Amino acid sequence: MAAETFLSEIGEQPDALLRLLEQRPAVDRAAAAIEERGLRTIRLVGHGSSDAAASYGVYAFGLLPGLTAFRDSISLSTYYRAGLDFSDSAVVALSQSGRTPDVVSYVSHARARGALTIAVTNEPGSELAEAADLTVALEAGAERSVAASKTFLNTLGALALLAGAAAGRGDELAAGLHVVVQRLAEALVELESAVAPLATTFAYVGRMYVIGRGIEFGTAREVALKLTETCRIAAEPVTSTDLSHGPIAAVDPMFPVWTIASRDECLPALVAAAELAHKAGATLVASGSAAYEVPNATFRLPVPEAPLPILSPLLSVVPGQLFAAALSRAKGLDADRPEGLSKVTLAQ
Amino acid sequence: MAAETFLSEIGEQPDALLRLLEQRPAVDRAAAAIEERGLRTIRLVGHGSSDAAASYGVYAFGLLPGLTAFRDSISLSTYYRAGLDFSDSAVVALSQSGRTPDVVSYVSHARARGALTIAVTNEPGSELAEAADLTVALEAGAERSVAASKTFLNTLGALALLAGAAAGRGDELAAGLHVVVQRLAEALVELESAVAPLATTFAYVGRMYVIGRGIEFGTAREVALKLTETCRIAAEPVTSTDLSHGPIAAVDPMFPVWTIASRDECLPALVAAAELAHKAGATLVASGSAAYEVPNATFRLPVPEAPLPILSPLLSVVPGQLFAAALSRAKGLDADRPEGLSKVTLAQ
Repeated sequence: MAAETFLSEIGEQPDALLRLLEQRPAVDRAAAAIEERGLRTIRLVGHGSSDAAASYGVYAFGLLPGLTAFRDSISLSTYYRAGLDFSDSAVVALSQSGRTPDVVSYVSHARARGALTIAVTNEPGSELAEAADLTVALEAGAERSVAASKTFLNTLGALALLAGAAAGRGDELAAGLHVVVQRLAEALVELESAVAPLATTFAYVGRMYVIGRGIEFGTAREVALKLTETCRIAAEPVTSTDLSHGPIAAVDPMFPVWTIASRDECLPALVAAAELAHKAGATLVASGSAAYEVPNATFRLPVPEAPLPILSPLLSVVPGQLFAAALSRAKGLDADRPEGLSKVTLAQ
Repeated sequence: MAAETFLSEIGEQPDALLRLLEQRPAVDRAAAAIEERGLRTIRLVGHGSSDAAASYGVYAFGLLPGLTAFRDSISLSTYYRAGLDFSDSAVVALSQSGRTPDVVSYVSHARARGALTIAVTNEPGSELAEAADLTVALEAGAERSVAASKTFLNTLGALALLAGAAAGRGDELAAGLHVVVQRLAEALVELESAVAPLATTFAYVGRMYVIGRGIEFGTAREVALKLTETCRIAAEPVTSTDLSHGPIAAVDPMFPVWTIASRDECLPALVAAAELAHKAGATLVASGSAAYEVPNATFRLPVPEAPLPILSPLLSVVPGQLFAAALSRAKGLDADRPEGLSKVTLAQ
């Protein structure tokens, strides 16, 4: 059956997160290496879902240890061989398969130029792990659906643990993740039935915006990617501020806008963007712990509050995953094996 | 007439660039300040077209002086007040109006925390210029169309000059820009007639991908933004590599894919992505100096070669601007005043 694997893997996420928590010794080694070398810059690289997770990493490192983190340009190193100085940098390279060619090549390049390189991958025996100084294994278990779910959530978890350990708050983050596991496990069944009515409504939608800001922008990117790959929707992630710098002009009543609303410092900006989209006639979906604070949403998919604000995205992405699975099924598509995609992407 | 101002401002770009070239003393002061303070990190911020230009800035600084540059998270500073260390950073803040609220607020925050702050704006008397240590005036002249054109090109020019000056290659870059001015002026009329047949073909298109990589990814972002704001197309910019990490699954014969092809190190990756899109049935448009090296393109919009590879984007964005103007007119829309947008965006 279409989407059966994707859907069941979404359900395996609480267990997968528990296995990740057993990887704390590797996480602590990586954090200790960052600290020992006094590194102040974190370069995150990855493609697809891993790149969405990298957007989250910018906030995890910025908010927990106060380190400057950014999604680095891969092509600057791999194609242009720019003469960048990596000696003050830790590279955190994200790849589920550990085989993404330009990520592996970037890591080798950065390591040769003095970076501390850390692989975060579900395949600890992979090329990427071999190329890097240190490896954090995701331990998500085999992920057979092409559309990632548990490897994405475990990558967020690994980044939160690593940033937490770098801030000397490893125990607090681990305890927080345990609570997330519990709340997610409790919420899954209800969330799955909550997305069902949306799938019928949006069966004919061809394009969509997914709005998030701050720590939830990575969530918006991941939800947009799920909808694109499993439902063939041209779903574009935009920040709440960027919406009014262009995209709002394209919104009309046939244009659904999905908002990721968590109760945090960015919520007012998110609500303002949602109001703008509503005024333009868009049908609003609001997911996240603050789903009820988005006015005029036609559909609301609330999730439990996270025990620490930085852990919110691990819960707020789940309605988007479940919706993608349900909509893909409603459209008769195969979310497990989307056309044109493969589990290991070897494109340069 | 709809789109008249936008179209005439596209035509004013050579003159606007010439005026920018008179701003070299201000550019040199900014470059000298970066050097004097030994800064190794460039944080770029902006929204909309300015953010697309920031993507270009990552490559200009990476390839010319070999400095690490990245598009910084604005919300991390303005909403979350993260305790980041700015003392080794220059901030290059891009805003046509100089009034984008969160960019102004970010600059004040970064400056108070020790960053050297440089405003690049068309309004040298603006709040942003006041908040920053140094200002580079774009001198693009009044831009009345809401859809930016000449301020975008002058922002690219300012970033190239600044990065060039920081590399001790200011004269070379200025000479190169003079050649760009000349080639652009010569090519404009022909390019305008070349886009006309595309406008009829794509009159009913609702979504599109715009593909670029490396120094042309910012171009892809700007072309996508023009199409979104002036033609109400949900046009999403994707890198050639990211296409195969998800978006390719959504492509079908109704899905045009626009590729920005310059003759540089990323061209093979771009061509591979174009082949993937063609196989999925997409109608291909190829613009840029290597437009004829993209196989199976239905439409080709070649531009003159730039005298220096880093200056390519100043030429390769122009077919996209002209196409947006033509398509907007074909659809009976008003590119000068797109619905929901204003020239000065005050959204937080």
